[in-house]
Amino acid sequence: MTDTLIAPSRGFETVEFKTRTEALQAHMAEQNIDVVFFTTEPEFRYFSGFRSQFWESPTRPWFLVIPVSGKPIAVVPEIGAAGLRQTWIEDVRSWPSPRPEDDGISLLADTLSSCAKGSGRIGAMMGPETHLRMPAANFALLQEELSQHFWVDVSLIIRGLRSVKSEAETAKIRFACEVTAAGFDFLLEHLQLGMTEREACKAMHLEMLRLGADACPYLISASGQGGYDNIIMGPTDRKLGSGDVLIIDTGANFDGYFSDFDRNYAFGQVDALTVDAYDAVYNSTEAGLRIAAPGRTTGEVWQAMWSVLEKSGALGNDVGRMGHGLGMQLTEWPSNVPNGDVELQAGMILTLEPGMTYAPGKMMVHEDNILITENGCELLHKRAWRNLPIIG
Amino acid sequence: MTDTLIAPSRGFETVEFKTRTEALQAHMAEQNIDVVFFTTEPEFRYFSGFRSQFWESPTRPWFLVIPVSGKPIAVVPEIGAAGLRQTWIEDVRSWPSPRPEDDGISLLADTLSSCAKGSGRIGAMMGPETHLRMPAANFALLQEELSQHFWVDVSLIIRGLRSVKSEAETAKIRFACEVTAAGFDFLLEHLQLGMTEREACKAMHLEMLRLGADACPYLISASGQGGYDNIIMGPTDRKLGSGDVLIIDTGANFDGYFSDFDRNYAFGQVDALTVDAYDAVYNSTEAGLRIAAPGRTTGEVWQAMWSVLEKSGALGNDVGRMGHGLGMQLTEWPSNVPNGDVELQAGMILTLEPGMTYAPGKMMVHEDNILITENGCELLHKRAWRNLPIIG
Repeated sequence: MTDTLIAPSRGFETVEFKTRTEALQAHMAEQNIDVVFFTTEPEFRYFSGFRSQFWESPTRPWFLVIPVSGKPIAVVPEIGAAGLRQTWIEDVRSWPSPRPEDDGISLLADTLSSCAKGSGRIGAMMGPETHLRMPAANFALLQEELSQHFWVDVSLIIRGLRSVKSEAETAKIRFACEVTAAGFDFLLEHLQLGMTEREACKAMHLEMLRLGADACPYLISASGQGGYDNIIMGPTDRKLGSGDVLIIDTGANFDGYFSDFDRNYAFGQVDALTVDAYDAVYNSTEAGLRIAAPGRTTGEVWQAMWSVLEKSGALGNDVGRMGHGLGMQLTEWPSNVPNGDVELQAGMILTLEPGMTYAPGKMMVHEDNILITENGCELLHKRAWRNLPIIG
Repeated sequence: MTDTLIAPSRGFETVEFKTRTEALQAHMAEQNIDVVFFTTEPEFRYFSGFRSQFWESPTRPWFLVIPVSGKPIAVVPEIGAAGLRQTWIEDVRSWPSPRPEDDGISLLADTLSSCAKGSGRIGAMMGPETHLRMPAANFALLQEELSQHFWVDVSLIIRGLRSVKSEAETAKIRFACEVTAAGFDFLLEHLQLGMTEREACKAMHLEMLRLGADACPYLISASGQGGYDNIIMGPTDRKLGSGDVLIIDTGANFDGYFSDFDRNYAFGQVDALTVDAYDAVYNSTEAGLRIAAPGRTTGEVWQAMWSVLEKSGALGNDVGRMGHGLGMQLTEWPSNVPNGDVELQAGMILTLEPGMTYAPGKMMVHEDNILITENGCELLHKRAWRNLPIIG
């Protein structure tokens, strides 16, 4: 059992938010965008530093407005004003919410229009992997009220900025990864034949919190004879018996940053096909680790990993990709996909997630988290066990 | 310390999903709506029974389509197809996702248009307290592809259906509430002068998981000399000292259903103003408990609670309401607001949340969870302590 892990400091220096904001503003100036606004937690937090669990409540919308120059402006429900005053934001505008007849929309429209006196171009997150966290009817109303303006998608700018992590961000992710690896090691010592999936997940959950994770918003498991048929359901009350393979996949969170990786455990008598499948995903990850480096593309990483799986008799892959970005969200842009053309850059943090169906209804999936460095890449935690561990 | 609490059974009988779907379809028929679609987790789960932590990943959109008659149709990423086959849904349509160039939109458009052969009216969640969990650009594209159809907001229908809980839903919420109350009792025994907010929250977090909560997605604290200035930030590393008041507010989750209430603790020497404020919110809750009953409105509940606070010298309330619905989400419709005209019905589950600013920068907030019964209401957990507990 790991006794303690040293957590990095919480929060960020103000200069980090200033740097992020100025980087966005440089893109805005280039694209002639007067102002952008954000509605979702990661973007709101990325630029403002405002961190609250209150996003769990869907009742009230929150808006962060960033003009092409100057500090961000918060347009928030009254309940959030005191919290915003703890951040580097100076201009905090609020309204008494909930107020269904005008839940911040007139205040947001005024704020946007006063910032959009140049080109009249207003940016919002409208592209892949995003959504607007505000009522669709209110977004339509906002567009009507600002009908003299032009709407521009800024999601490509944001995903580019967020995909390269600062040192302080990397330290938080690395700690989340270390806690997760220690949780998997703990489980290796504590799993037993006859335990249920739910008991296994609960034990790991408690251990990761004890070791310093703030929360584990994602902690799933699947199991079955010789393999599992999905990686997004569970845990269930299924008892683990001889011949079973168990996967646990988890995202632990520290100070708003995620880990995301999995481990496989076998029980009792394991057939050769299962062992071969484990070896295949392990070796596929090795191929990923060898190729991931600045200048390589996500497609090249996918190809390197897939060629190992294909040689090992993979029947297919239902996950849709073999790894992705990681940070403030459990999964972030970019994706490791067959024709992926995103060039890796130093500072990106990615998961390598080779997976395959190796018999009808049986999958094997492996996942590790890496940092792209100047010359290659670096694992953010202890590597998975070389051989499929067998319990009991 | 509470040793064990008996958890209710997990999941629901299929008849429950059938009943929910038919109730929606009756409203659809009345309003001449051919088909509705959902994009957010609570609605997707409410009608399909599909429960997965995978919603934590923002990458892929998920759609549930409900025609005016017949079973729902799932339009989901390939990674979700195996999980959907465990539900009562028979028609599962999937596409390989992520696929940014068409992430399910053409499949969704085809599905909707084949179901919308009558009035051509398509329902979606577009009203207060909702959002569409899909890229805004894709919703615009969908509206273009289905430009011969008419779009109708169905959020009022859904919030009406979801606000009245079934017995099985109530049992899950009651268990989450019992776990939470036991967590607060545990803390009463374990809090000490000099402990930090974060240590207090962590101890309670571990205890609630031990007692059977699946997760505690909301667990905040605030503290300060004689009161706190917000109820949505924290926990911080602030040490609790004499004269402090600490609030912890939490939403524990069991099988997809939430509790949501708080408790206050004082430390060392406490001034009279603080004790008076605690008595005021306690008595305000009593007034709420006396009035909450079928036929009463959310406005009457608010007035009954506020009149107690006003007499006690309340300076204001920055929360914007004094309680709200509770269930699959931490906060649900309706809100207890001054002019609230929502009539309470048996089966509704609400929080009573009197709160006031009683000195500049000092708030006192109290919260309990109730079930509206045939004749009045019933607390779902042990009542808060009559007197402000004092530690040390």
